[in-house]
Parts: sequence; C-alpha cells; structure tokens
Amino acid sequence: QSCNQGEADKLNVHIVPHTHDDVGWLKTVDQYYYGANSSIAWAGVQYILDTVVQQLSVDPTRRFIYVEVAFFSRWWREQNTEVQQEVKRLVQEGRLEFILGGWSMNDEAATHYNAIIDQMTLGLRFLNDTFGPCARPRVAWQIDPFGHSREQASLFAQMGFDGLFFGRLDYQDKETREMKLKMEEIWRGSQSLHHPEADLFTGVNENGYNPPAGFCFDAYCKDDPIMDDPTLEDNNVKQKVDDFISAAHKQAKHFRTNHIMMTMGSDFQYSNAKAWFKNLDKLMKYVNSAVRYKNCFFLWSVKSDDFFPYADAPHQFWTGYFTSRPGLKGYVRESNKYLQVCNQLETVAHLRSGMKSNLRTSKSNVLRAAMGVAQHHDAVSGTSKQHVANDYAKHKLKSGGRHCKDVISSVITEGSSNLTFCDYMNITLCDFTQNSNRFTAVVYNPLARAVSKYIRIPVDCTPSYIFVVIELVTGARLTTQVRRNRGNANCELVFLAKLPALGYNSFSIEKYKSSATNKRLFTPKGKVVNPSDDITISNEFYSVNFNRNSGLMDSIVNIESGIKIPVHQDMLWYNGSMGNNASKQQSGAYIFRPNSSTPFHCSNDGKVKLSGSNPLVQEVYQKFSDWAYQVVRLYKGIKHIEVEWTVGPIPVKDQWGKEVISRYETNIDSNGYFYTDANGREVLERKKNYRPTWKLNQTEPVAGNYYPVNSRIYIRDAHVQLTVLTDRSQGGSSLSSGALELMVHRRLLGEDSKGVAEPLNETGQFGDGLITRGKHWLLLDTVTSSAKQHRLLGEEAFMSPLVMFGGATPPALVQVGFQSFIVNPLPPNIHLLTLATTNSGELLVRLEHQFAKHDDDVLSQPVTVSLKGLIKNFEVKIVDELLLGGNALKNTINRLQW
Amino acid sequence: QSCNQGEADKLNVHIVPHTHDDVGWLKTVDQYYYGANSSIAWAGVQYILDTVVQQLSVDPTRRFIYVEVAFFSRWWREQNTEVQQEVKRLVQEGRLEFILGGWSMNDEAATHYNAIIDQMTLGLRFLNDTFGPCARPRVAWQIDPFGHSREQASLFAQMGFDGLFFGRLDYQDKETREMKLKMEEIWRGSQSLHHPEADLFTGVNENGYNPPAGFCFDAYCKDDPIMDDPTLEDNNVKQKVDDFISAAHKQAKHFRTNHIMMTMGSDFQYSNAKAWFKNLDKLMKYVNSAVRYKNCFFLWSVKSDDFFPYADAPHQFWTGYFTSRPGLKGYVRESNKYLQVCNQLETVAHLRSGMKSNLRTSKSNVLRAAMGVAQHHDAVSGTSKQHVANDYAKHKLKSGGRHCKDVISSVITEGSSNLTFCDYMNITLCDFTQNSNRFTAVVYNPLARAVSKYIRIPVDCTPSYIFVVIELVTGARLTTQVRRNRGNANCELVFLAKLPALGYNSFSIEKYKSSATNKRLFTPKGKVVNPSDDITISNEFYSVNFNRNSGLMDSIVNIESGIKIPVHQDMLWYNGSMGNNASKQQSGAYIFRPNSSTPFHCSNDGKVKLSGSNPLVQEVYQKFSDWAYQVVRLYKGIKHIEVEWTVGPIPVKDQWGKEVISRYETNIDSNGYFYTDANGREVLERKKNYRPTWKLNQTEPVAGNYYPVNSRIYIRDAHVQLTVLTDRSQGGSSLSSGALELMVHRRLLGEDSKGVAEPLNETGQFGDGLITRGKHWLLLDTVTSSAKQHRLLGEEAFMSPLVMFGGATPPALVQVGFQSFIVNPLPPNIHLLTLATTNSGELLVRLEHQFAKHDDDVLSQPVTVSLKGLIKNFEVKIVDELLLGGNALKNTINRLQW
Repeated sequence: QSCNQGEADKLNVHIVPHTHDDVGWLKTVDQYYYGANSSIAWAGVQYILDTVVQQLSVDPTRRFIYVEVAFFSRWWREQNTEVQQEVKRLVQEGRLEFILGGWSMNDEAATHYNAIIDQMTLGLRFLNDTFGPCARPRVAWQIDPFGHSREQASLFAQMGFDGLFFGRLDYQDKETREMKLKMEEIWRGSQSLHHPEADLFTGVNENGYNPPAGFCFDAYCKDDPIMDDPTLEDNNVKQKVDDFISAAHKQAKHFRTNHIMMTMGSDFQYSNAKAWFKNLDKLMKYVNSAVRYKNCFFLWSVKSDDFFPYADAPHQFWTGYFTSRPGLKGYVRESNKYLQVCNQLETVAHLRSGMKSNLRTSKSNVLRAAMGVAQHHDAVSGTSKQHVANDYAKHKLKSGGRHCKDVISSVITEGSSNLTFCDYMNITLCDFTQNSNRFTAVVYNPLARAVSKYIRIPVDCTPSYIFVVIELVTGARLTTQVRRNRGNANCELVFLAKLPALGYNSFSIEKYKSSATNKRLFTPKGKVVNPSDDITISNEFYSVNFNRNSGLMDSIVNIESGIKIPVHQDMLWYNGSMGNNASKQQSGAYIFRPNSSTPFHCSNDGKVKLSGSNPLVQEVYQKFSDWAYQVVRLYKGIKHIEVEWTVGPIPVKDQWGKEVISRYETNIDSNGYFYTDANGREVLERKKNYRPTWKLNQTEPVAGNYYPVNSRIYIRDAHVQLTVLTDRSQGGSSLSSGALELMVHRRLLGEDSKGVAEPLNETGQFGDGLITRGKHWLLLDTVTSSAKQHRLLGEEAFMSPLVMFGGATPPALVQVGFQSFIVNPLPPNIHLLTLATTNSGELLVRLEHQFAKHDDDVLSQPVTVSLKGLIKNFEVKIVDELLLGGNALKNTINRLQW
Repeated sequence: QSCNQGEADKLNVHIVPHTHDDVGWLKTVDQYYYGANSSIAWAGVQYILDTVVQQLSVDPTRRFIYVEVAFFSRWWREQNTEVQQEVKRLVQEGRLEFILGGWSMNDEAATHYNAIIDQMTLGLRFLNDTFGPCARPRVAWQIDPFGHSREQASLFAQMGFDGLFFGRLDYQDKETREMKLKMEEIWRGSQSLHHPEADLFTGVNENGYNPPAGFCFDAYCKDDPIMDDPTLEDNNVKQKVDDFISAAHKQAKHFRTNHIMMTMGSDFQYSNAKAWFKNLDKLMKYVNSAVRYKNCFFLWSVKSDDFFPYADAPHQFWTGYFTSRPGLKGYVRESNKYLQVCNQLETVAHLRSGMKSNLRTSKSNVLRAAMGVAQHHDAVSGTSKQHVANDYAKHKLKSGGRHCKDVISSVITEGSSNLTFCDYMNITLCDFTQNSNRFTAVVYNPLARAVSKYIRIPVDCTPSYIFVVIELVTGARLTTQVRRNRGNANCELVFLAKLPALGYNSFSIEKYKSSATNKRLFTPKGKVVNPSDDITISNEFYSVNFNRNSGLMDSIVNIESGIKIPVHQDMLWYNGSMGNNASKQQSGAYIFRPNSSTPFHCSNDGKVKLSGSNPLVQEVYQKFSDWAYQVVRLYKGIKHIEVEWTVGPIPVKDQWGKEVISRYETNIDSNGYFYTDANGREVLERKKNYRPTWKLNQTEPVAGNYYPVNSRIYIRDAHVQLTVLTDRSQGGSSLSSGALELMVHRRLLGEDSKGVAEPLNETGQFGDGLITRGKHWLLLDTVTSSAKQHRLLGEEAFMSPLVMFGGATPPALVQVGFQSFIVNPLPPNIHLLTLATTNSGELLVRLEHQFAKHDDDVLSQPVTVSLKGLIKNFEVKIVDELLLGGNALKNTINRLQW
C-alpha cells in the first residue's frame, strides 16, 4: 500500500533501492557482516543496515528493500530497543520492505528442495516472529543465482509469493524476451499441481540487479554523483537527466506495461546509504517530469520449462558450478540429513517433555542457520573463494553438526551417554570401531517407513578375527561379511540392518580371535581376474558384465524384466579450456568450457584393471588410473546397482585442468532427449541443442547441453529406461543417443573471470588435489516401472540411515535398542519432509506426496493420512495449514491473480 | 568546556575523530567535494559532513573536529534550515569543533604571508559570521604540510591561536624529541615581536595524523573492525583492547603530561562516519579502565628556528616541492596581486557609494576562494596530479582573475568601458597592443607609496615605426626605447612610468610610420659580441662584467659603495635520482634527490653565447643551451640587477630527469651560513649540514641543505652581502662558502612514492616540456645597507604595477588618467597589507611594519600612522583592533599562557 501506484498515461519508473549481500563469497559470512578482511573487499553489512535505517528515518519518502535474513537477524540482535522500535515503524509503514526473506538467496542448481524449504522457512518465520504478518515478503528475489529452476518457482508459489524477479538468464533468451515483450510472464512451476497453485508471475530485471549505466551512486562506485552546484564547470545535472530518461525509454521498450523497475544497488552497496539516497533524491528531483506514455496490455504469456543452462555470452556457459566442489556439495547434502534427524529428535524430546522444553536455545539452530547459509548461491554452488568454502564446511556446517550430534545422542540415550559419530566411514575410517573389540551400533532411520539397509563398519581384522553381530532387540545373530579393504581400516564389516520407521535399531558387535586358518567369514582379498575371462556379478535382480579386454562394464541384465542391453561405462575427462581464438573464456568455478568436445580416457592405456568378486555383497574394483577408481556393487536383496567412484588427486602437473565425467553408453534410442530432476523433486525433459522457448544458436556443444542433476538423470526409449541417481548435485547431459554422463569432479588452473578470482583448484591437507568419493545408483528397467523405484531410492538416498556407536555395554536404549517414534508408518508415496518444533513450541509437520502426476499408475494417486496419532506422544489439538514457508496461515493469504 | 578534562592520576587518552580533506590533490577540489572521478579515489567530502553531523546528532557523547572551510562553507550552503540549526547546536555544545579554520590547510614552504593571512581570514571570518565567537578555532592544525615555517607560527599566534599541532617533521628531529620529551614545546615565532605575542604552544602528533596501527576503522581502511559477537571464532575484542593499551603506553612515553592525543582519522575519512564512530564506541566501551599513570611536569622548552627541511628517511628530503611547478607558483604569486588590487578597488567603489554597495555578491569572492584553495599544501606546493594543477590554474585562478579584472576595469573607468588585460606580457604577447596603432596604457600601483617603474609593452615594429608615449595627466612625451625581441611580438616598447601611491597613471601610446632610414629610436638588434671582448653593462649603480671566453657573468661592481667582487653565475642541472643502492628513493614532485652532488652545466660546450648590449635599458642575452636562456638587465636609475631566466623545454629524451639551478659563486666569506626568508617576511639564518636543535646526521649533502626561498636569499660576510630576490617561491641553498643557488625548474621521469603517483613532468600545449620564465633581482652592497633595499624591492616585487589597456580614446579616467586613492602615502617601512571590505561593509585594513627589528637603524623604528584620512572618501567612525585573522576583537581574546 505504501508504493506509488503511478499514473495510467505515463511511464512510471519504480526506483528500487536495494543491496545484494552474499552470505559468503569472496569473504566469509562473518567477515562480510563486520566488514573484516577488507583487503579483499571492504563490504560490511552491519553498516548497510545501520545507515539505511538511519536514512529511511530522516525522510519518509525513502524506501528500501532488504533480502537476506541471515544478515538482518544478526544485526537485529545487536540493536537496542529504540532502534528496534524504529525499524518496526519503518516496516509497518512500508518504508523498509523485506523481499524474498530467505535466510540466504539460495542457489537453484545445486540445492535440494528440502534444504531450500528449510532455509526459506528459517528466514520467513524470523520475519513473521519479529514483525508480524505485515512484514511477509510478497515477492521473491533471485537476482544473482546463475540460472533458475522450475522447482524453485513452484516452491515460491506454494510459499505464497505473488511474484519473482531475477537477473540472470541466457543472453539469447533475454534478447528474445526483450523483442517479444516477454520480460515478464507467468511461470508454471509444476506439472503435477493444479494451476494456478504453482504459477508465479516472473519478471526479468533489465539490468541484472544493477542500476542503469552511469547511475551507480554507491560509496564504492565509480560513476560520478549528481553535481548540481550551478557555478560549477563540472555541473552534470542536464547530462544525468537526459541519460536517465533515455535509459528509462530504452528499458520501457522491452516491457508490456507502463511500469518499469530500476534496481538501484548492487553487491554490498548502501554501506554508506547517504551516498545513494542523496543522489537518488537529486535524481528524482531533477527528473521531475514523468513522460507521457501509453503501452499497456495485460495478456501474460506462460512458460513451463526452466532457465537452465545460463550463458551470458557464446562461450560462457555457467554449467561448471553444477559440479564445482563436489566434496562440499556432498557435505551439504549429508548435513541436510543431520538437520532433519536433529529436528525429528528435538521434537521427540519436546513431546516427551509434554511440550515444555525450552526451544529458544535449541541446539539445532546452529545447524539450521549453517544450512541456511550453505544454500547460498556462492556456497553449495562451489563458487566462493577457497577460504570461504573452508568456512562453510569447517566452521559453519561442522559446528552445526556437532550441536546436532549432541541432540541426537542425548535424545536416543535419554541423556545417559554420548554416542560416537564417525564422519569418515565413507573412506572406511572410524577410530572408535577400529580400536574396539566390542561396541554397539545404533542405526537411525529418518524415513517414516521401515527400510532394510546394508551397513558397512570399518574394523580392524588383522591377523584374523571373527565378528559377531547381534540385533539387540531380538538377540538374533546376523549374517555378516568382512570385506578386506584398501582404505584406512583394513576391513569393513557388512551386515543388513532392519530399521523401523522414524526410529532406530541397535546391534552389538563383538570381535573374536579366530584360529589362523579360519577364514570362513572373510572374503578373499579380491584376486586379480584372469584377463582372458569376462567378469560378471549378479544378485536376484541384476547381472552386470565387465569386458575382459577393456575392464569396463559392458552390459546389464535386469533379471526380472528380462531386459538385457549393452551398457558401456567409462571414466573420462575434458580438458578445461584456457581460452582460445574463439574466446578468451577459461573453464572455472562457474563456467564449464572444455577445450575439445572429445574427452580423454582416465586410463592411459585404454585398459581398466579389474579385481575381486565376492558373495553377500558382490563387488568389482576398477582401477582407471592412479587417481580414478570405481567399485561396482550388487547387494543381496537390493534392487539397484551401486557404483562408488573415487576421483583424485586429479593430476595437473601437465598444466591441463581436468573435468572428470562418468559416461554410460547404451543402445537405448533416446534420440537426444534426456531427463533431469529439479532440486531433487520434479523432473524436466531436456533435449540436446534445443531450448523450448527460443531458437538456440548452440555455441558450446558440450557445456551448452549440461544441466543440473540434483538427484537423478535418465534416458529412455519406448520401453527401456536407464536411471542414474546421485548422492549429491552434479552436472549431467546426454550428448549422443543412448548415452548419459555426469561430471563428478573438476580441478582447473584457469580462472573464469566471474569475480571469484581464484582457479578452482581444491587441495587436500598435503597440498595434493582433493580426492572425492561418491556414489551413483543405477536402475535399468521398463519405463513404466522405473519411477516407483527411483522415487523411493531417491528418498532413501538423501535420508539414508544414520549410524552411531556406543560402548561395549549398550547405552540406555529404550526397548533394548529398538524404537520407532511414529505410530503409523507412512505409505511409500508420502514423505515426511519436516518434523520439527517451532520457537513457540508448536510442531511443524510437512508431508509430501513424492510422486509426480504421471510417475506411476498406483503411487501417483492421492493418499489420505491421519495426523492424529501420527507421532508418539503427540496429541493434536489444533491443525493450521500454513504456507510452505511456515510463516502464514494458508487461508489468510490471497495471492495476486494474474 | 565540552572536553573531558581527564583524571589527574591516570593516563588520559584523548580520542580525536577527524578527517583530512585536501582541497585538491589527486582529484580537483570539486571532485573531492562531490566524490566524482572516483576511479582515482572515492573520496567525497559532502558525505563526510552529511554523515558526521548525523552521527554526532544521535549520540551526545560523540565529538568531531573539522578543518577546511573551503569544503565546509560549500556544504553549509547546500543544507536546509533544519540541518543548519542542528549544526549550530552541535557547534554550540562543542560536539562539532572547528580547528585551524582556514579556507585550506596551507602549505608553509611555497606560500607568501599575504596569501596565508588572506586564506585564514576567509575561513575564520566565515566561521565567525556563521556561528559567532563560540566557533572560533583555538588550535591550529597543520597535520600534513611537509615542513613548518616559523612565520606560520608567528601568524598563528597573532591570529589568537592557543596552540598548533602538526604531523610531519624530520625523522631525526622526531626521534630526538621523543627521547627528550620535546614532542610539545613553545615555539617563538618572531625575532621582532615582543614575546609572548608570537609564541605558540606546538605539539607534534605521535602518528602524523593517523590512528595507531590496527585502529583505522574508516570505510576505506583495511584494519579489521571490532568483532564482538561472543559466538564468533573471529572475535577480536581482547586483541584490540590489548593493542590499544599498548599503543597508548608507548605513546605516553614521549610526552611530558598524562594527557595524550590519538588522531582517529586520515585523508578523506568519515565519509561513512558510522563505521568510525561505531567502532570507536566499542573501543571505548571495552577499554573502559583507564590505567593509573603519573608523569606530569610542565616546564616547556622553547624553540625559535623552524621545521625545514623535512625528511622522513635518510634519502627522502621533501625539498623538491620548494620549486615544483614553477609556472603555477608564479601564477599564484601574480594572482595574489590581482586579489589585493581587487580588494583595494572594490573598497574604493564601496567608499564612493557611501558604503552602500552590495558586497555579498562581491565579484572578488571568486578569486579570494580560488586563492584560498591555491594555498593548499598540494596546490602551490606543486604536488598535485597534473589534472588538478590544471584545475587550480585554468579554472580556479583564471576564473577568479577574470572576475577581478571586471572589478578593476569597472572601478578605474567608473563603469564606462572595459580595459584589456594582457596576461602574457612576460613572453611579449599582447594581441591588443600588437595590433593597435594608438591605445592607452593604464598602470596601477597597489603600493601605498609612489614608485617609478619601467613598463615593457609588446608592440609590432615592422617595417619601421616611431612610438610616441604621452603621459596623459601632464601631456609630457616620455623617453622610450624599442627593443627588438625574439619573442612573440617582434618588439617591446620600454618607458619609465611614474606612479602615484595606491593609484594609477595613464599613457597614450601612438605608432607613427617612420622614414625607412630613421632608426634613431630603435636599438640595434643585439649584435653578437666579438668573442675576444669581455662585455660590461652598467648604469648609475652597478657595473656587471661577462667573461669573453665563458660568456658567464664574472664580476659585479657596486659603484656607490665601491664594492667589486667576482660573481660567477651559471645555470646547471642536477640529475634527478631514479634510486640507487643506498635507497630506491627517486626524485619527484615532493622529494629532491640528485643522483650526484655535482650538477651538470646547461651549456654542453662550457660556453655561453652572449649577445647584445643597449642604452636606456642595458641588456645582455645569454644562451646556455637550446632550452636555457638568460637576460641580464640594468635599467637607468634602478638600483638592482635584473636577471630574467627562461628554462625549458627541459630535455628528457636522454631519460635523465633534470633539476635546473642558477648558481652564484663569489669570494664572500660566508662560511656555510646563508639566510632565507620565511613566507616572504622574516628571515632565518641557515647553516650547511647543521640543525639548531639536534645533531644532524647529514645523508643528502645537496637536498638536505635546501630551504624554501619565498622572496629572498642572501649570503654575507662581515662587510659584503649578496642578495637575490625571487619573483616566486623556489628552493635554495649555499653549498660552499661564497656560493648560493636557486632551483628554478625541474622535470622528472621518476615518481617519489609519496602518493601523487605521477612523475613531475609538466608539458606545454605541444607536448614538449613546459617553458618557464622568471626573474631574479640581485643586490650587492654592504651588510648594513642591504635590508632597506631588499625590503622595499621585495615589497615592489610582489605588488608590482598592473598594466591595462584602453582604446585610442582614453577611457573616462578621472583627472585625465591619474588618480591616487590614498590621501597620505605611507612611509616606506609601512606596507598596506590589506585594504578590503568585509561582507558586512566595514573596511578591513592591515598595516604592516615591513622591517624586522634589526634590519635597519632607521627604517626598523616604530612609525605612527594616522588612519583618519588615510583613504579618500573614508570617514573613520569606529576602529576595532582585530586578531590577524579578522575574526575577533583582539581585546576580547586571552590566549592561554604556557
């Protein structure tokens, strides 16, 4: 209501003073807040809020929007009551307006929807708790992320936003939109939800998020201020007025209505708000004659694809960051799980206490805030400086995780003891289990349905031991397998754990010295296969064959469906460009630009060394080179193929930066089409060298076909579908019919000139390139039966069981180590997305139908679930349906109808 | 009264938030004010005042000092009444305090006292007019000028200042003072005035004018702010507190009392005042426990020399700027004369109008402000960037001069016509006179005593003309001489003009075609002298001999006194250092560092070409090289030798920067002593390789002996004195007994790393090095009779007659072109320093006794002058004796007694 509505027959220019405050990029979020480490950049957010509030106070005509609640909430905490009251007044009067209102402005390519919802919730609820409904952001503001996902639009719509504005889109796309007056349109965010539920008015900013050229009045800008001293030779009022009117008219040509917006601000601007406001005041004073104008029509076009990939020039595709910093991307995904478990168990404790726990000081807040920051478009995206990436991982997430482990341990043991967490079990490192002869393993399942999962525990097995695993609740001795291992521990103990819905099961593990000859329980150290033999591993569901000459996977059989197709898998690398005659653009943290479209084999001699094949879990080890390994696994009773890749240290002594991919080639007649998920949720169809809404001039045959893969990618023909699920976000594509590829790691020597000013060259503790290990899960099945598998497997992937350890004497585990906190497990198509407790002590529950509309004949159907008695100790008194962000009652909000 | 008085038994640290705002340096004064041209530096003074005032307003415990009235007055004009009222309140309450209060912070080495007084007056009176006596600055603040003159101290004392603080002094001097606790002492500013009239408490700032290391909290500083979030890993409160206390104790060791000052600010800081104040608030909050301390004694030492030259390291003597940009230095001196004439004639007009003229819009204000800015320590000093020097000269001074010429023309012609001014007569260029056959010359004498001066007017004399010059008031035809000339005009017309005190005389000049053979009035084009003949010129007073072999001056005879001594004069150049093994320091705009102590001859072959010798004015032309010329002149009836030097374009194609000197070598037994003036007024004794107050370790045998020469330098022995007067400020020295030298021009290729970041490499309109022409006036006489000559000649030099032109019909000149505005001319020892009209319409008159105490037995005596009837139309009703700055009644001020 506080906005100037403009005049019908004039061109109305809406001046939007704003600042864009990255929660970490070139400096850490803390350094940005205080303005420390200013040899990198002075940016100090505390002063932005200090001076903006002051400048708004002195002049009621001034307006400002603020976005990042991670910064705002911190500043707010430091203010005295007087300032807080003044800010409340400014918010009430619409002079200070929050938009977006997330904890951060999250990345859209490398983020998982669970984390997006959480980080938006954290920010939006802070605003609601602090200022009430009047402060609810109406507009989403994703001005800087490097491409835009459709899922994000859907989530925003469900959060009650009236619109979305952003700044970065493909330059060809933008040109087309300018010409066709499609800078603003309706974005259909979901193929499953009834519209307009996921429809969102979406505007492209004319100047990214910057002011028009010549009008940057910030204290760190180079443009001249308005110099209006009439006696001055340098007086530039006329020039500025002319330039401004010209810029406004130029911009207006691209828009359908007679209202245009000018973003007056940029990165960390307004730290001296006076400089901006003083000159804007003058500008508005001198451009006092609005110009007559008539150009209104209100038929909005509709878009239902997304804004990936983003290119700002022919050879500048921002598709490298889909994979940049795979270690951090994996850690963020893993931390999401910790936060969900922490939320769940904090809620369990809260319910146990009769909802009387003091949640204001909730330990989960640390990880919640850390995860909010980690979703930032320079955090999980992998595009910050190295020292900032270290801060995200080593300070923020690690500290948050530590607090959450305390919560988890304390709730599970009812405060009786500390459980031990081993963060490096993926590289078979766990001091606790390696050095114990007898210990307890507690395995928590955060899903609201029961699952059975193979657990792998690093143990010491020399000279020769027998391991006995007892399920505590039943006393049953489980079948185990001990895998000799080339990692940190010399063995891994493998067993299948049956886990209750939203609860845990516990196992006593004891090591006995075996007679030297008793090797019954040991699998042989994988013998090197006779190179003349093909090798095949198989279980009840799959059979996978490896070629005896090349050592590569060469076919897969789905035993149930009878599908048998050649599947040739290899690890290869693109050489990152250092620039060439066509363009100086180098491959870097943001940009993927291979020097050639043909990748090199990781194996120098074209042969991959194969070794090992074993029973309970059948494994094949592949060595592509000294820095690229793979294990392909088939677990008994498990209906997917697991491919664990280990890449690094990527060698760069040859001065060639490398971007490593895993590529699958099949005879599936996919014909250029492939499918990738958006933020781990709905799936979009992709087509090579094609964009649904404009005629593409493809200038980068590889990078220009890369898309974000957050959880899955698949190709298919009329009958067969090959699906690859990932454990973290990666870039992926299908560059020829029947093929798909995922980029798993990159190490570069160039710099892509997008501001970060460092090559993406991660090194480990010894200065070598960073080694990264991750997993792909393969499904080969009919098209119709694939979705029900990848939907459930995808859910299990990001909410995998949490394994903790206690001493020889089991901790005080309720019901002898077995517990489910849910009364009625949920059906498989319903995902318990959120079970958390708010600051005010209510429960925040999100139930999600995780099947898209046409995924599966059965599982895509609506389901009814009773909240009553869902969770133990949870007596439902009042149920309020909230917006997705949890910050307003859904029925109180009427979104604008477009 | 608003200051915290501290506690007797504690160390009291006085935090002084301040900003240092150059009125031009790397950017022009206008660019600095607005914050334009920010690719060079962001600095924007408008925001400093905006945000400081706001920050003072919100917290009554905050304090700030402001210095430069050129900026403040401009900002003030732009404020609305509300802000002005608030500022008045802040000033009244002592929260905003003006110190120094000059229009600028003037340079002390290259400035003339007349201009210093004017610029201080301009600022101080603005403050008094705006805020009343409460705002009167009590402390002078010369924190940045590169050395300090004793005359400046004397002027400050006479302006009523209680003390002076500065930042730059010789590093050896500073070390000594720190050790001897002489960082604060009493400076005796005059050898002529009764003390304590010219005594001034003077403090050296510990850190120049910067904060202690680690405490620069400005928005453009690199130091970390105080980060006091207790949850933060980066929390630095303890470190900052420890560092601060340690810095305070370290500083306190150098001072006699338990009060120390910390300058919290620097160049153009506080443009975002919040950043500074917020962190100072935190600092003071955390350093809340003052530390017990007792170290008070109050016996102040006394100093009576000055602080030249300034060195901040063994090879960094700031003695180059004494000469840098000689063209600008000359123009500033010339502009001072215009301003004085403008003041005088504006007053004449004011008196004519019965003191009813509207002086608020006085046209002289433009030049007054321009001159205020030009005295700045990066303006007349020659140490600004080239584009800024252009702004000072081509915009500021030129525009001010244009306005003043209007005033002068309009008063002299009583508004009836426009007189023409020719600015380039020194290079014999004046379109008006060159293209007229008949015109009028009006010659104004700004001195309050009558003088006779030779006037030289560029004329066209081809093919052959006779020039008739008639003194209008008497109708007398004057003797003339026409000099053929190698300059722009082909001839110069020379005649002697008798000029009344404070008034003008006018001459009709007519050109007649002469018969081709009539060359009587022409002097021959100087014939090249037979190299075997010595050449001698002489008049009633002097005879000057030039050696036939070398072409150089080799002796001078004072005919009256019979003194005849060898005087060997030559032009030479030092090669500016580009750094060597001893130090990387290069010669530059600030620093003089010759590569060798032995200069090179300008003449390559060791021979100077001589030509010409003529009657009425006898002249000898010397050509040292293609870029160094000299004319030595003796005028009939004039008792000094004029040496006009022309230097440039200094060649640098050999990649050698050059610093050109004029050196005189005599047999005067001066024994290392020499004498230089301070700001054109009192004279100080200098001694080679010696400093009066500390044991000097001389590390630069040439540059370390250079001193500023603003008007004169002399050497003497028991009997004979050789005095050289200059027409502008230059550096000078005496490096061996009987010798003295003046540096006249410099062109350098290196950069001295003092911030200006440009080599001092002035070029003219065609890209060649700038040519500069100037004059030296030589006196050779007994010691006792020298002062009366150089005092009067010095006065005539900076207040030389102003020559203007009218058309063939004389303009409406009162009394047929002759007029004196003074009733009773002043005696020769009294200089009419100021005759001006204030904004409120009173007359501001400064009468100066221009002889030092022991200059002359007769003329140094006190004189009584009657103000009544001094000036025509001036009826004295009330006389108030003011402080020298004109901003307070002298009898109302009690300076602190030390």
